[in-house]
Amino acid sequence: MHAITIPEPGGPEALVWAPVPDPAPGEGEVLVEVVAGAVNRADLLQRQGFYDPPPGSSPYPGLECSGRIAALGPGVSGWAVGDEVCALLSGGGYAEKVAVPTGQLLPVPAGVDLKTAAALPEVVCTVWSNVFMVSQLRPGETLLVHGGASGIGTMAIQLAKAVGARVAVTAGSPEKLRYCGELGADFLINYREQDFVEEIREVTAGAGADVILDIMGAKYLDRNVKALATNGRLAIIGMQGGTKAELDIATLLRKRGAVTATSLRGRPASEKAAIVAAVREHVWPLIDSGRVRPIVDREVPMRDAATGHRVLEESSHIGKVLLVTDE
Amino acid sequence: MHAITIPEPGGPEALVWAPVPDPAPGEGEVLVEVVAGAVNRADLLQRQGFYDPPPGSSPYPGLECSGRIAALGPGVSGWAVGDEVCALLSGGGYAEKVAVPTGQLLPVPAGVDLKTAAALPEVVCTVWSNVFMVSQLRPGETLLVHGGASGIGTMAIQLAKAVGARVAVTAGSPEKLRYCGELGADFLINYREQDFVEEIREVTAGAGADVILDIMGAKYLDRNVKALATNGRLAIIGMQGGTKAELDIATLLRKRGAVTATSLRGRPASEKAAIVAAVREHVWPLIDSGRVRPIVDREVPMRDAATGHRVLEESSHIGKVLLVTDE
Repeated sequence: MHAITIPEPGGPEALVWAPVPDPAPGEGEVLVEVVAGAVNRADLLQRQGFYDPPPGSSPYPGLECSGRIAALGPGVSGWAVGDEVCALLSGGGYAEKVAVPTGQLLPVPAGVDLKTAAALPEVVCTVWSNVFMVSQLRPGETLLVHGGASGIGTMAIQLAKAVGARVAVTAGSPEKLRYCGELGADFLINYREQDFVEEIREVTAGAGADVILDIMGAKYLDRNVKALATNGRLAIIGMQGGTKAELDIATLLRKRGAVTATSLRGRPASEKAAIVAAVREHVWPLIDSGRVRPIVDREVPMRDAATGHRVLEESSHIGKVLLVTDE
Repeated sequence: MHAITIPEPGGPEALVWAPVPDPAPGEGEVLVEVVAGAVNRADLLQRQGFYDPPPGSSPYPGLECSGRIAALGPGVSGWAVGDEVCALLSGGGYAEKVAVPTGQLLPVPAGVDLKTAAALPEVVCTVWSNVFMVSQLRPGETLLVHGGASGIGTMAIQLAKAVGARVAVTAGSPEKLRYCGELGADFLINYREQDFVEEIREVTAGAGADVILDIMGAKYLDRNVKALATNGRLAIIGMQGGTKAELDIATLLRKRGAVTATSLRGRPASEKAAIVAAVREHVWPLIDSGRVRPIVDREVPMRDAATGHRVLEESSHIGKVLLVTDE
């Protein structure tokens, strides 16, 4: 098969489509013939040499895919060759084939075509595990989503609205904010022109956000704590604004707040399987019914993954960038 | 009645035993004739002018007491005049009488004398709400308690052992550590001579602490994050080491960790009542059976509360310092 390899870390041009050995499905795994993968920020870090795959993972980038099951490893039941699936991966999605533990497989939801299903696993599992499983967003509460037009952001808006929460988003352009509003976001904050702490206080009558889904890390830490409501929960899932910053413990204590930081990729297979199972139970019905849908910015050929990376680096996209194979 | 008043903030001598008007129990409150109160760190801050009582609270210090119900306010059922109780207060425990919402009352456990019951409400509610309700310590996990010989610490050791967790403690003297060991602590760390990060790693085979109960705040933030296990939870309940410090978000994210900071006093009555109800259900049977007991360092007359404050400031005590009335 072919896969995107990274002979030397670097810019987007470091991604090289090359012949590599086929993976073999191990115990409890299936082999998936990939129809599409999708680009995540972590892939950009891996390309630059900053994010080594966890031990035992595929050396190729790619944290999600969709495709058809081509073979079953030993001990697999409940899945058959030919099944159309999408999957959460710990690597290897930028390839024509990938071996996947069955706990990370999901059926393709009704009304979603096979290719587009590749846009779902990472964003749905990330949003569900952080906003709902960890931060316990409840109906009537206010969620603040930074980067509302990103893949994560567009899914967070839809899921939070589906459970009856109010949603505020930040984004950097009127076009992105308009799109977030069309997806259901109640409060639109242009971070280039407005102070999100002031804005969130204004729209919550001074209370602040009950949950904040953050991708900026250090750069926003202090402002995020200021923007939290009493009993508020800050969930950090990205560090685009750096990794170390001063925490105002007194303010956090006064608010009885929580700061959590997580990633999906490093979790053991058992935790990934628990998240995937929760997603299948709670989120898949919302997608089956059309209430929540994958948002795709564009498709690019997988062999030209560099173009996909450039799109994310320019941050002009809305939703996910898919990488499609030639199949 | 008499109460400890604070005419001017300052040192322990600022505490003045003076005649004041009796409190009147409001809707859903009872009047308690106080037999004993107890000293908490927050009282020292209030005495110094750094911690104003929450709106609607008694102006006098004192976050817990034991005594007898002397009168019922409107709408009270389930309690009778003469009942022996202990209570979680938002203030006013350094007094001969105090009005208490019924949601914050607890019966005196079997085998505990009425005076000694004043040692229970703050430490039991603080430990249960943070270590168990928020941080969800589970059997087999490791809890690290800073200040293991304090009132909070001695209760945290006992409760964690009672649910089947392993307990590591820090303290500043061999005598305090020996006492923690007698209460059941498995791993004893002298913070004056040992690095608790290294020690906790060593006794957990490199894993770290699943839950840390912290009273130091800023001074320990970075080391606490380093000492956390994967999926670890840091619960900050005091800021004796300052209020602002750098948070290493990358390390927290790699560990999928959580940092929470809470206080009991600022919580609304409904949250206090929920904690007290949980304590009555889960902790009171352990005290009734003698499995867990209040640890009292000494009793001082309430009119001489200054002596109690000096004991806490010297930090030579083990367990709680009670303030007893003349009744």
